[in-house]
Amino acid sequence: MKVTVGISNRHVHLKEEDLKVLFGEDYELEVVRPINQPGQFASNSFVTIKTEKSELEHVRVLGPVRPYTQVEISMTDAYKLGVRPPIRDSGDLEGSLPVTLIGPKGELHLKEGLILADRHIHMTQKQKEMYGFKDVDFVSVAIPGEKGGIINNVRLKVTEKAYYELHLDTDDANAHMLHDGDIVEII
Amino acid sequence: MKVTVGISNRHVHLKEEDLKVLFGEDYELEVVRPINQPGQFASNSFVTIKTEKSELEHVRVLGPVRPYTQVEISMTDAYKLGVRPPIRDSGDLEGSLPVTLIGPKGELHLKEGLILADRHIHMTQKQKEMYGFKDVDFVSVAIPGEKGGIINNVRLKVTEKAYYELHLDTDDANAHMLHDGDIVEII
Repeated sequence: MKVTVGISNRHVHLKEEDLKVLFGEDYELEVVRPINQPGQFASNSFVTIKTEKSELEHVRVLGPVRPYTQVEISMTDAYKLGVRPPIRDSGDLEGSLPVTLIGPKGELHLKEGLILADRHIHMTQKQKEMYGFKDVDFVSVAIPGEKGGIINNVRLKVTEKAYYELHLDTDDANAHMLHDGDIVEII
Repeated sequence: MKVTVGISNRHVHLKEEDLKVLFGEDYELEVVRPINQPGQFASNSFVTIKTEKSELEHVRVLGPVRPYTQVEISMTDAYKLGVRPPIRDSGDLEGSLPVTLIGPKGELHLKEGLILADRHIHMTQKQKEMYGFKDVDFVSVAIPGEKGGIINNVRLKVTEKAYYELHLDTDDANAHMLHDGDIVEII
């Protein structure tokens, strides 16, 4: 079974009230580029992620607004920021790390929300069954090439609407010389 | 068979004449910290790596001087610099990328020398035979943990003097959440 790779650079999801604090009362996220997951999009809104040690500027906000505010970075980013976030599924934020967000209109000091996103493959329940993963929650994926190998602990993430795609962070992508749209094999 | 992990951050090796251009006529590299490979050391000398697109400051020079000048970066660095260097063994620089080095006393425009270092395990010929790798040139290594998996195409690098150790760049390390001194298994 094959799957297409989608690479997630560091990014931020915002809940409505946090969007207002950072960008102003009537601000709305604008669709610059739809991403493959249905309804999701890259906006042209950016924030600075700040920790005690350092900061990362110009981090893109993905839309639409969500019920929670979440900051997804790579381990390489985490070293720069001097933090060790847990590896988590989107929305699973209890006990994740505090972080400060700075927007053009305000600052937010979040008690939690900073994570490393886990390796996952988006799919619908129907796709999960159709592709032979009915009773499977995690798979491994074979990566070809000079910096190839096998990546483990790839979660099958089932949502009502989904575009079938493997999401990896930039560390996984760069370590394995992967690019958006590469096709790899689930084993 | 197990092996200890050593992580290589971006760094520079210099030949004698290039050291003089960058740091001055009578400059000598000072041992700040020996590294595990016999005779090799971290110096307290730093250069800037520059390309047409961007630059990386404060990149450490490793000593002692070598017969060639070589710049080793990660793919993450390469994206920042806007270049796509080949994956190479140390010293195998023909057709590698041009790069500019800036030191406190001068600049160097190298026609080649910029590479991504390959994944490799240092060993002596005696260790190679003793550990059961007599006719083997490449191995795979199993990485445990939440971001674990298997990394392929790890070259067995034989030198006269060697400290038995797996060298990975920061992309491989960060993707797999590895740290200096971690112990992993050759398969």
